[in-house]
Amino acid sequence: MEYHAWFQCSEGCDEKYPLNEVIYRCRQCNGLLEVKHDIDLLRRRSGAAWKEVFNERYMRTQYPYGSGVWGKKELVCPNIDNENVVSMYEGGTNLFWAERFGNEIGLSNLWIKQCGNSHTGSFKDLGMTVLVSMVKQVVKRGGDIRVVMCASTGDTSASLAAYAAAAGIPAVILLPRDKVSHAQLIQPIANGAITLALETDFDGCMSVVQQLAERKDFYLANSINSLRIEGQKTISIELVQQFDWEAPDWVIIPGGNLGNVTALGLGFLIMRDLGIIDRLPRIACAQSAKANPLYESFQNDFKTFDPVTARATIATAIRIGHPVSVKKAINVLKKFDGIVEQATEDELANAAASADRTGLFNCPHTGVALAVLLKMVESRLIQRDDRVIVISTANGLKFPEFKIDYHQNKLKEVQPQHVNSPITVEPNYDTVMKTITHHLKTLN
Amino acid sequence: MEYHAWFQCSEGCDEKYPLNEVIYRCRQCNGLLEVKHDIDLLRRRSGAAWKEVFNERYMRTQYPYGSGVWGKKELVCPNIDNENVVSMYEGGTNLFWAERFGNEIGLSNLWIKQCGNSHTGSFKDLGMTVLVSMVKQVVKRGGDIRVVMCASTGDTSASLAAYAAAAGIPAVILLPRDKVSHAQLIQPIANGAITLALETDFDGCMSVVQQLAERKDFYLANSINSLRIEGQKTISIELVQQFDWEAPDWVIIPGGNLGNVTALGLGFLIMRDLGIIDRLPRIACAQSAKANPLYESFQNDFKTFDPVTARATIATAIRIGHPVSVKKAINVLKKFDGIVEQATEDELANAAASADRTGLFNCPHTGVALAVLLKMVESRLIQRDDRVIVISTANGLKFPEFKIDYHQNKLKEVQPQHVNSPITVEPNYDTVMKTITHHLKTLN
Repeated sequence: MEYHAWFQCSEGCDEKYPLNEVIYRCRQCNGLLEVKHDIDLLRRRSGAAWKEVFNERYMRTQYPYGSGVWGKKELVCPNIDNENVVSMYEGGTNLFWAERFGNEIGLSNLWIKQCGNSHTGSFKDLGMTVLVSMVKQVVKRGGDIRVVMCASTGDTSASLAAYAAAAGIPAVILLPRDKVSHAQLIQPIANGAITLALETDFDGCMSVVQQLAERKDFYLANSINSLRIEGQKTISIELVQQFDWEAPDWVIIPGGNLGNVTALGLGFLIMRDLGIIDRLPRIACAQSAKANPLYESFQNDFKTFDPVTARATIATAIRIGHPVSVKKAINVLKKFDGIVEQATEDELANAAASADRTGLFNCPHTGVALAVLLKMVESRLIQRDDRVIVISTANGLKFPEFKIDYHQNKLKEVQPQHVNSPITVEPNYDTVMKTITHHLKTLN
Repeated sequence: MEYHAWFQCSEGCDEKYPLNEVIYRCRQCNGLLEVKHDIDLLRRRSGAAWKEVFNERYMRTQYPYGSGVWGKKELVCPNIDNENVVSMYEGGTNLFWAERFGNEIGLSNLWIKQCGNSHTGSFKDLGMTVLVSMVKQVVKRGGDIRVVMCASTGDTSASLAAYAAAAGIPAVILLPRDKVSHAQLIQPIANGAITLALETDFDGCMSVVQQLAERKDFYLANSINSLRIEGQKTISIELVQQFDWEAPDWVIIPGGNLGNVTALGLGFLIMRDLGIIDRLPRIACAQSAKANPLYESFQNDFKTFDPVTARATIATAIRIGHPVSVKKAINVLKKFDGIVEQATEDELANAAASADRTGLFNCPHTGVALAVLLKMVESRLIQRDDRVIVISTANGLKFPEFKIDYHQNKLKEVQPQHVNSPITVEPNYDTVMKTITHHLKTLN
């Protein structure tokens, strides 16, 4: 069966473009593009048959189908030849059963999807494998793409740099000089990306990258490129698969630029369209109170949306006041009886630390989602036996300062409730034993 | 079928002890214990049948068999009830096809096993899940273990703290005060371990932890505890499984305390005993030149072994002069026609950085293994078409300073050959374009 997909304008005019065209907005109406699939063709296979295909491939050795993304290739990007796929075995991440944390907050069926346990340490790999594979295919077929580029200070640049390096395609990263630490940059630097520090702010970088993107030989990897959404939507397919194809009751996901919320929803919708699931979960989008335009819009039943000026937050990756995917995300949330909730700095840091004590190592964005979970339990929106999934978007190892500062009480606007510190003791049995005994009592 | 395993003295006297006993050395002769399996019983199932069982379970949803460790439960620790298993879906890590790096150094079949892509970021999780599960079972059955403990400044403490936290068992970490950074400690701190900073050096900590280990209610998780080896040996089973059950030609693995080399070998040996593979690979143990007692011993065909005083090395986790598992490791290496090679600081840092440029993000210990790989290619010990696997032991995200210092030329004894740095430019199209064009030329 020859499945296929294409870009289509998502803002009214329905104009179509091939997926291998270097294009990000509709030439007719300037609307954002999205990837569309031939659903009728996909429906010729039953839901049960799709599940069987996906199960057979999952984490197996037949390249590239063992990848959690490429195992769902027909629903993601059927147009790419297998030999052009640039994959690092995406997905297949632990759906952590939060037994202890669930017990502590009164939930029996709480799960945390560890998307940060991936090649570059964040969920961005799920989308980047699709984008870079498309570029590789275009280049292989004689297309004139010389560079893949993005403006980003975090996970996107890390993921782009690694996939481009594996493919042997030059990557360019644009970022504001002096606003980015060496630790944030070390992944693209190590992967050999051409890393430009511009004497401007982030908006200035975006402006330059958009000018560069008018060249057909410079391919843009920022989230306006909807190929990435197609890979990211396998998050929902994979987590349903991990429950033997049963949809959960709630999914809570951190939201900044809102591409990930959109992708999550699209994954569930295509599964329902194909008869793989018969009901949808509800979705909660979790925002930082410092960058909460969707939360504000939700207070108004999404009747209006006003961008905000995002303020500094520990949850740096979702410090976004004017999210590029806001229209798509609102559409998705409406279909999922969705809600938007926010978390303060204090709430996100304490929620992350509280869950860490039960064996996790949460990034600050996961902290936002966990804080929202606590509020939803408190308000009874989530019930004791609901099956709830929290999407953990990045690896906590990317944020050592967040953890260190928390446990040293150095975070702004945070009163840490779960501090732990090394205890200095003399190196003899009696003193050590006495100290341990004392601390064991405090644990109980 | 009721499979079973037991502790047995590995140093001559063959005394046996049950696996749930709190014991680390033979009571008869003080020899190290190892876990033994009833091989005759295991052999009643054919090699082909074992492969089928392992394939059916691999990364699937039936707890705990989806874990790469517990999917091989009969070969690891059959004595633990499934309900007592504390698992975070270990294993299932990417066997990265190093296509570009292989091409650069003249190999067509080079693979890097990403063991650091795990719950706490290192291969230690493979063994810790077994150890903590055993403790949970002993406690559940009324045994009096109050604490699991180790002396460690790195991956072992991180892994112990996370698994103990998930199980709700108190963990105690002992470490030398002032010799450990906050970044090294933040994982056990976040996971709520009782973390004691002793006013002594590492040997002083080991001495105290050994005194504590004489108590039956304090369980020792350092690598003298051979339960960990059983989990770690699934590395070899998994990587053979990822090649559809074909053994590679060479496996290169970093060696410090040498438990991991031992485990790797035991995994291959039990597969051969059960008819799962019919030949063994050769094994190369890669040591830092600053902590190379096994390398020195190999120069002498292992006729003698002398501990050394380990010196400071970037490869901190293998800075060990008197490895606890040396006898077992030498036995293993002899069976695999093994070799030992060493790498200097300069060699390990440049090898790691060179491979990073092809899409990886290597920890310094993986750097040691990669540097040894380069030497073996150079000396023709490894041939162009050999299938070679390098074991990457930890996640590069744990070592940002190593990466940053390398690219800023701040590492001692290292002349960095692959430096990349941010380039400061004015934020306008022409300047940016000119800079990119210039750097693209240098890439070719």
